[in-house]
Amino acid sequence: MPAPAAARTAKEIAIAEGTKMEKLTIALLGGGVVGSEVARTLLEDAEALAERVGAPLELRNVVVRDLGKERPGIPRELLTDDAEAALADADIVVELMGGIEPARSLILSALARGSSVVTANKALLAQSFPELLAAADESAVRLEFEAAVAGAIPIVRPLNDSLAGDRVTRVMGIVNGTTNYILDQMAREGWDFAHALRTAQELGYAEADPTADIEGLDAAAKAAIIASLAFQVPVSIDDVHVEGITGVSADMIATAQAQGFTIKLLAICERLEGEDAGVSARVYPALVSREHPLASVSGAYNAVFVEADAAGSLMFYGQGAGGAPTSSAVLGDVVSVARRRVLGGRGQAAAQVRGGSRVLPISAVDTRYQITLEVADRPGVLLTVAEVLAAEGVSVELASQTQLETAEDGVPRAKLVIATHTAKESALAATVETLAALDAVASVRSVLRIEGS
Amino acid sequence: MPAPAAARTAKEIAIAEGTKMEKLTIALLGGGVVGSEVARTLLEDAEALAERVGAPLELRNVVVRDLGKERPGIPRELLTDDAEAALADADIVVELMGGIEPARSLILSALARGSSVVTANKALLAQSFPELLAAADESAVRLEFEAAVAGAIPIVRPLNDSLAGDRVTRVMGIVNGTTNYILDQMAREGWDFAHALRTAQELGYAEADPTADIEGLDAAAKAAIIASLAFQVPVSIDDVHVEGITGVSADMIATAQAQGFTIKLLAICERLEGEDAGVSARVYPALVSREHPLASVSGAYNAVFVEADAAGSLMFYGQGAGGAPTSSAVLGDVVSVARRRVLGGRGQAAAQVRGGSRVLPISAVDTRYQITLEVADRPGVLLTVAEVLAAEGVSVELASQTQLETAEDGVPRAKLVIATHTAKESALAATVETLAALDAVASVRSVLRIEGS
Repeated sequence: MPAPAAARTAKEIAIAEGTKMEKLTIALLGGGVVGSEVARTLLEDAEALAERVGAPLELRNVVVRDLGKERPGIPRELLTDDAEAALADADIVVELMGGIEPARSLILSALARGSSVVTANKALLAQSFPELLAAADESAVRLEFEAAVAGAIPIVRPLNDSLAGDRVTRVMGIVNGTTNYILDQMAREGWDFAHALRTAQELGYAEADPTADIEGLDAAAKAAIIASLAFQVPVSIDDVHVEGITGVSADMIATAQAQGFTIKLLAICERLEGEDAGVSARVYPALVSREHPLASVSGAYNAVFVEADAAGSLMFYGQGAGGAPTSSAVLGDVVSVARRRVLGGRGQAAAQVRGGSRVLPISAVDTRYQITLEVADRPGVLLTVAEVLAAEGVSVELASQTQLETAEDGVPRAKLVIATHTAKESALAATVETLAALDAVASVRSVLRIEGS
Repeated sequence: MPAPAAARTAKEIAIAEGTKMEKLTIALLGGGVVGSEVARTLLEDAEALAERVGAPLELRNVVVRDLGKERPGIPRELLTDDAEAALADADIVVELMGGIEPARSLILSALARGSSVVTANKALLAQSFPELLAAADESAVRLEFEAAVAGAIPIVRPLNDSLAGDRVTRVMGIVNGTTNYILDQMAREGWDFAHALRTAQELGYAEADPTADIEGLDAAAKAAIIASLAFQVPVSIDDVHVEGITGVSADMIATAQAQGFTIKLLAICERLEGEDAGVSARVYPALVSREHPLASVSGAYNAVFVEADAAGSLMFYGQGAGGAPTSSAVLGDVVSVARRRVLGGRGQAAAQVRGGSRVLPISAVDTRYQITLEVADRPGVLLTVAEVLAAEGVSVELASQTQLETAEDGVPRAKLVIATHTAKESALAATVETLAALDAVASVRSVLRIEGS
């Protein structure tokens, strides 16, 4: 392939072609917390950003729903509610309105017009990632979305570029600060879920309607994007097996702690080999050994733990949400798409999604279970349970039995905690069903997966 | 600025221009551990890499000193000792020979020829970073060096791209695995430095000549590169204040642990405001609170802790050395420069170094000291010491005195450990001198800085 032209500097060429000093225009869709933060930075740090980019960035307008609302630091004349008009002459479109529509249509029309697009819209990406990438590729412009995955934590670039010559085998992420804070407080204070949630809401760590967070939907959207990036396979949120944290009890956490574990809501993306070869993406509360780097990620912090063939284990840690951290990621993307436009070239889809390997159901996954049973406290029960496990081909790593108070029916009860070795999810699920049906088993108190060990 | 041409896909354009299917040629300088690993991967994973890049990568030759030596997995016919000839028609040059010359001349001539260059040569970058960047910019090609800073841990891209719209204020890194392993073993096993070093050498964690590691020179080279990236100021290794770990004793570590600290060799790059505005880069063993994320980075692992205005605190964790991890970073760079060549454009210097703000001496830095003195155990000594500190304007945060066995001279002795509040490095240094000169002070046992709190 021919070497790039001329021994003139990029600057000289740019100046010669009169692009260097020409400004890049930006249309910002959304005037919420992040949008306002981004707008203010674009206006206040204009000089530093121009230096970083090699050309001035001009914020043309900020598209908002409510024109009446005051937005400190953003001049009134920049505000508009006419999105289509705002897009018309924008080199770069920053979409921070969230939700599927009209965000999707606006991004598609911006890409079709040849604008580069930066978005933090995880819900949209988790649904329409391949479509948006194709549109960007079609116009040979960039689509960036670092802020959509883990706030300020760079994870898109590491997966896309840094590890492009390696083979990622697994990604495990704590990607939702609200649930991490709630689980943290339950563990620290011994609170039950309801109380921890209320406190999180009072402190503003959880929204009035916390469903998206506590049911694991926010994490699932991020898991879909991470899996698509890590394995270049189109994974949508519908492919992600999701379990939230509403079923996590103070008792489960106490039991976990007693055995050297902490409970974390994990988004897990895994490449599976063998006859069940494919990609798995799942979200559930799991037991993580206290020794694992993810175990010490506390409060509203996020972390993404990546395993690759050559690189080994990597972890990226930081603030996964909030106006300032998210705007930091958005502006990083803005600067890099702007640099790309200054320097020319045919653009580059921010990620490649190819298909090929299939997305697997949870049943195909190999994992470990911790099964907590309430059983009749009499001889032979442990044996019966062991027989059931053996019959399902599940081998026991650890079993511990502790006496409970005798129940109303006068039958003495015990709590039996079983940690299994790795087995197929389907076999483990079947095992739990069979155990639940045993006379000797009064109830299945909890079933948790053990990860990262 | 005009939107990029035509609604044809990047692929269509590439194919139309006949570049898409054309292969990219690679010359590899250096056939050591990392070089061989990179060569093998280029040969064995050729198909996957071609897919990632959008064009096949052809390893043309591997330049080695000793043609006789067997290199498993690398065909003999690829080996050559004629570097200049090998560079002649290479699209991408990968420099893994290390050292200043001939690496520097070869990279400069490769860049001048319009080849993109990937290097892992920290020594060279720490000395000639601005010169190499200028040469890359001159030919409008890329120079990438992710592997030079922290092995497999992506830190160049985060600083260069992800945080390009933010303002980095401080970077603290554990960037040398050998010293981290030694300090770790001293803390765990209570070993003294010499024994821990010997063990590290026996296990292959430390080289026969460990100078570069234990004297902090390897960390200093990385600090220079990190500071240049984080603050866009040319910082050379000569600007970095360096203290190694040879002076760290088992006693110092015990004292640190007793007070809730762990001792880590830190590479610190900081942006300072006020009348002493500028950039500071320094390497020394420091006390880190056990609560700080860096405290739990153990063994041969590396971590880089970044503080930025908007992003807040970020940490990047992983393996900082070793053949496979380093080759992962090198190949990530190879794929990204290759993609860039496939997609065209005027290239982009991998980093911008501008100058402007000045590099500061250690004396200008604000820090905290832990001063451990051996004093005469008699009334009034603490008062005398306190007066000296007050006179130098250094305020004490904590002072603890413990009795020692009476020395030969029959004078009862005590160990006095003082933790200061933040003060100018110069004032602290002066204070220590004055203290050492006091009659009541038998010896200054240790002086350690306290960081990250």
